Amino acid sequence: MITTASAIGVAQAPDPGADLPSYVDGVCRAACTAARELARTDTATKNRALEAIATQLLKRHAEIACANAEDMRAAREHGLNEALLDRLELTPKRQESMVQGVREIAALPDPIGEILELRRRPSGIQVGRMRVPLGVIGVIYESRPGVTVDAAALCLKSGNAVILRGGTESLRSNLAIGRCLHAGLAEVDLPLMAVTVIADPDRAIVGELLRAQDGIDVLVPRGGRSLIEKVSSEARMPVLRHLDGICHVYVDAGADLDKAEAVAYNAKTQRYATCNTMECLLVAEAVAAKLLPRLGRRFLEARVELRGCERTCTLLPEAVPATEQDYATEFLSPILAVRVVADLDEALAHIERFGSAHTDAIITENLDRALRFLREVDSSSVLVNASTRFADGCEYGLGAELGISTDKLHARGPVGLESLTSQKFVVLGTGQVRT
Amino acid sequence: MITTASAIGVAQAPDPGADLPSYVDGVCRAACTAARELARTDTATKNRALEAIATQLLKRHAEIACANAEDMRAAREHGLNEALLDRLELTPKRQESMVQGVREIAALPDPIGEILELRRRPSGIQVGRMRVPLGVIGVIYESRPGVTVDAAALCLKSGNAVILRGGTESLRSNLAIGRCLHAGLAEVDLPLMAVTVIADPDRAIVGELLRAQDGIDVLVPRGGRSLIEKVSSEARMPVLRHLDGICHVYVDAGADLDKAEAVAYNAKTQRYATCNTMECLLVAEAVAAKLLPRLGRRFLEARVELRGCERTCTLLPEAVPATEQDYATEFLSPILAVRVVADLDEALAHIERFGSAHTDAIITENLDRALRFLREVDSSSVLVNASTRFADGCEYGLGAELGISTDKLHARGPVGLESLTSQKFVVLGTGQVRT
Repeated sequence: MITTASAIGVAQAPDPGADLPSYVDGVCRAACTAARELARTDTATKNRALEAIATQLLKRHAEIACANAEDMRAAREHGLNEALLDRLELTPKRQESMVQGVREIAALPDPIGEILELRRRPSGIQVGRMRVPLGVIGVIYESRPGVTVDAAALCLKSGNAVILRGGTESLRSNLAIGRCLHAGLAEVDLPLMAVTVIADPDRAIVGELLRAQDGIDVLVPRGGRSLIEKVSSEARMPVLRHLDGICHVYVDAGADLDKAEAVAYNAKTQRYATCNTMECLLVAEAVAAKLLPRLGRRFLEARVELRGCERTCTLLPEAVPATEQDYATEFLSPILAVRVVADLDEALAHIERFGSAHTDAIITENLDRALRFLREVDSSSVLVNASTRFADGCEYGLGAELGISTDKLHARGPVGLESLTSQKFVVLGTGQVRT
Repeated sequence: MITTASAIGVAQAPDPGADLPSYVDGVCRAACTAARELARTDTATKNRALEAIATQLLKRHAEIACANAEDMRAAREHGLNEALLDRLELTPKRQESMVQGVREIAALPDPIGEILELRRRPSGIQVGRMRVPLGVIGVIYESRPGVTVDAAALCLKSGNAVILRGGTESLRSNLAIGRCLHAGLAEVDLPLMAVTVIADPDRAIVGELLRAQDGIDVLVPRGGRSLIEKVSSEARMPVLRHLDGICHVYVDAGADLDKAEAVAYNAKTQRYATCNTMECLLVAEAVAAKLLPRLGRRFLEARVELRGCERTCTLLPEAVPATEQDYATEFLSPILAVRVVADLDEALAHIERFGSAHTDAIITENLDRALRFLREVDSSSVLVNASTRFADGCEYGLGAELGISTDKLHARGPVGLESLTSQKFVVLGTGQVRT
């Protein structure tokens, strides 16, 4: 049974009748204490905790599956749509990949304590920067139990305590996973409050978390646009957020059309519902007549609906006319907006106007234009001759990610371990004073 | 005469009768356009602009002095206190150092466009990060005309447009400086709106700027606590801010007492009103009886009032008993809180409780404890055997600074050129697709 205002891992579980503000305050205080201990914990201990968590997730496989089945049953009863049910479901394959993910994070280098360089200054002091944890990370996410494991493992490895508040539909799954996380922490004597799974289904608790600026150092919302917007406007602490992924592929006049065809097709069709999927194809008019019919055939075979500008529709009779709104839409489905542009400048202007600063690619063999595109497109990932689908923490070698930040400050692009740290200045002297 | 709702550098100055929201919107749009051009501008052009600005500041020296004299006269009439008058005044020496500052920024390496490394991934793509400008920086500051020059030069060098809103008492000085900035930009054909000096004395404009999240990428407030708090709570965009500087020096049992005396004395007395001045001295009890009388004498000579714990008062009869509040106070004056602590752990706990995460130092010859202090004190600067007064952009080799950030995200410590940039991912491929 789920009791109101209780969190697993709270050393002294708060009164079931306690009010929400003091409940959240208690959770934050306990997390802060745990964060201080985690910041001091060495790499080997953190890795042993992660390995123990992976083992627990395997051992309690059936328990997690049962909890998830119950969540699924309740969600179906409440009429959740298929897309949400799909996110909620923990198939055996997904459970396996959760375990795999934890082990991959254990294998990543520990960013904490690293000092990149120590430079000697004219005064005689040596100045460097040391990577340290942020402290307490709050994660507010939809009903997607895999996030519980990913977020906990990333925060643990980077020495941060984490407060996890997943969607209410996934509560049983999250609690089952939370028991594995705590069992793993307990095995190596790390504080259980390093990971708090908020077990209170009351949605008002999200509002309380957003106001807890003294207890949570940074908040990461993961979910649909309305959640992100609520968190962005109400959170009193810094937020790492991911807005839309309206990603472009621009095929330049200097493109190799075989590469263009392969990349554009992959960027759209490899997966439709991911944030780094191409939503709009821009084609330089010099190559449009050659490229579009080839690509059009392939998209037609893949049943991708094409919405194009006038010139596109002339070249591709199967395309329907695109509206202004189509260029500003993250379809997340087999629909593609297409536009023929005069040149790179027109492509840059289009991306500037309609893009979401997420991921954009140029296909060209022309070095000057490739460099201009790299420099001038103000997106978190900018690619030359590669599919937008590569914009991903694993593909970039960062390991698992806590999301993709479309903001410019602090973390930009995939939020991996390094984004969960800050760099403080360290100074080594031998008694220097300032004159 | 100052007209309402006019800004120098607005290509088409807005209607004097225009409402504030649309005025600010116009300023932001123009700044965004300028920012795009600045982002593309090469290093040589930016440096020529800075040199031209320095020349203009020299040439229009008398014009700036007159404008400042008028600001000073009006401020005296309005009964501004001495501390504020001191900040407002542009002495010949300060004017000189403004020019010097601009030239130093011109001499710094340009961070924009730098790609730190390109790593080849198993898929064949090469992944790196490129430093790019943030876009439009807003700076809201008190009546301190030197900030106008520093901020404009730092933003220009880092390829950002800047919107400057200084205190109303410094309006004439800022406008005179603004004319130099624009003359310098004009000489090298850079857009004037790269720097906007808001010339509207209406304080309501600050509120409008705080709501302009679509036009301003990051806001930097510089000033007293009330300004910082207003900006932190009302700003809709990310903020780089500097709260209190309650800085500690902890003299460890393993300290060299000569170094301890020199560093502690310097950290307090070299300047009283700076944010990196020591406000609290912590002394391990093992060395308190030896160190405190020596230091006490010197502080007495310098007329520093000592407020100590019980043991301090026993060792230093001239000290008065400290209250809890004294340990939580940024005195910015010749007052020092002193406390004898059992050991490093007690010192860490004290700093954790009373510190402001700004700058803290340990004096010790013991390597283990030095490393623990470096790692565990969660402040923007942590020093071993050096004065807290070194926590400064110039001393760290960053050049001028736009302030010192006590936040953990993005910029921590002195906010130099690098803090005014973001890093986006760049990917070079040869037609790779994701499988």
